[in-house]
This record gives sequence, C-alpha cells and structure tokens, in this order.
Amino acid sequence: MSHALRDAVTSPTIKSVRAAGSWKGSMTTALRVRGFELSTDEPPAVGGTDSAPTPMELVAAALNGCITVVIETVATELGIALESVDTSSVAHLDTRGFRGTADVSPHFLDYALTVQLVASATDDERESLRAAVERRCPALNLVRDAGVPLTIDWQWAVPA
Amino acid sequence: MSHALRDAVTSPTIKSVRAAGSWKGSMTTALRVRGFELSTDEPPAVGGTDSAPTPMELVAAALNGCITVVIETVATELGIALESVDTSSVAHLDTRGFRGTADVSPHFLDYALTVQLVASATDDERESLRAAVERRCPALNLVRDAGVPLTIDWQWAVPA
Repeated sequence: MSHALRDAVTSPTIKSVRAAGSWKGSMTTALRVRGFELSTDEPPAVGGTDSAPTPMELVAAALNGCITVVIETVATELGIALESVDTSSVAHLDTRGFRGTADVSPHFLDYALTVQLVASATDDERESLRAAVERRCPALNLVRDAGVPLTIDWQWAVPA
Repeated sequence: MSHALRDAVTSPTIKSVRAAGSWKGSMTTALRVRGFELSTDEPPAVGGTDSAPTPMELVAAALNGCITVVIETVATELGIALESVDTSSVAHLDTRGFRGTADVSPHFLDYALTVQLVASATDDERESLRAAVERRCPALNLVRDAGVPLTIDWQWAVPA
C-alpha cells in the first residue's frame, strides 16, 4: 500500500470492498460478500454445470446495477422524478484470451449499454443527468478506463 | 460496431455476454443474466435497504470467481491436481468519485487479491500456473488494464 493510499484509507470517504471465493469443482465457485452468498459457473461446453452466471456475466450485471444506482442518485440531486429505469448490456469476449490460444485481451472486446428512462425532464436536465452519470458511475468507468470501446444509448420517454 | 469487430463477432471464438437490470427504487436493481436472477442494493447510509451486495462488491465477487475458473483450467492443462482454491479480495473506493464531490476516480483505488492453493506442484509448475493465470484471467486484466494498482499474493500449501 502506498503512503498516499495509507492516508486515504483513514479518510471517511474511503470505503472497503471485500469478497471471497471457494472453488467447488467443475468451474463453480461459491462466493461470499459480507453475509451474502452467490456463485459463478460456466456452461457445459467449458466444463461447468451452468448453475449460475459466468464471472464476466456477473461483471456485466454489476455494471447494470451500478449505473442504475448512479442514475437514481443524480436524478434526486437534479429533482428529476424517475418512473422507471431499465438497462441492458451486450458485450463480447474473444475466448482465445481466456484459453491462452492467441495474444488477445481476455476481457471485453466491446461493451454496448442501453439505458431506457421514463421521466419528466427537460432537455437540459437529461443532458445534465447523462453527463454526471457517465462521469461518476464506478463500474462504467472501470470498463472505460480499461480501454474497452463503450457505447451508451440513452433512451428517454415521458410518463404515460 | 467497428468493421473488425463485426468480422470478429462471426468467429467461433467470440462469445456474447449479456445482462439486464430494472430499477426497484431505494438503490435496488433487479438483475437478469439468461435465466438467472440476482440483485444489487446499497447500505442504509446511502439510501438502500442492504438486501444484496453493492454493484462494486459484485465486481469483486466476479473477479474471485473468474480467477478460480482460470486456475482450474490452467491446472488441468499443467497436470496439477488441485485440492482447494480459496480467494479473497480487498479493494478500496473513494466515494467522492461516486458522489461527484471531488475529481477522483469513482472506481477502485487499489485491489489486493489473495489466492490460497492446496496442491502438489513443483516450483516450476507453480510459476507456470501463476504466470498463465495472471495473463489469461478476464476480470483480473479488466481491473489491471483500468490502471488500478493490483497486488496478488499467491500462497501455496501441500495436501495434508
């Protein structure tokens, strides 16, 4: 841990994030986060039993959850009343990276996110929300900072 | 989608990763991955109900699952008989990034991973496994490529 980081860890704005895993065989891992239990697995084609999402599917799920929390937070700040937020992610992996059969990145080749919002908001409010969410969302910025080509399609509709 | 990527998507080595989410209010998101359902939430201090891991905890859990799958895969290739694999992650976030109150990265400040393996393996086999896993693990490389200072403590023990 660097000196700067050691100082930072004592700051009230620094939060720890912890997780643990135990191998269960056949590509399955039992995962623990505080008191929560979940797992990852792989499809049979890769030697798993398809009992749970794959690890990279879990990363994509986390990103959907992350942007939704940030949207709620920013909408509250801007006084935008949200009726609904629905998101979907489509990304691609080149499995040769994981397999070790080609010198390609093992993680996302690309990442396309669609965000569908139902809310009453002016054009300026929509743009303020979009800009703040894209700047502040942790998981989104993790993927973008990793150099993954990322597209976000913001779709707005007004309440019926 | 780029031309190169469009070609790549037709390749049998390219795999799609999909996830979707729906906002449930109070910082909670219902997440879907193929037929699997899970969710993310936040602690009450952030306005959530603490019913599930946070999104960035889910990213950390995914990383633990990811490295475990890659360890199993590489151990099989090298003929190493694994008895157990246990992992734990400790990372830190500066919540001012998420809050938008300082110009800091909203994602991981650092990421420390501990890997405990029980297996019969020579020193050369241990080193071959370590190097291949660190090169081929998708989630690990996502975090590393994002510029997050990453440490991995490999701990080996022999079967009792």
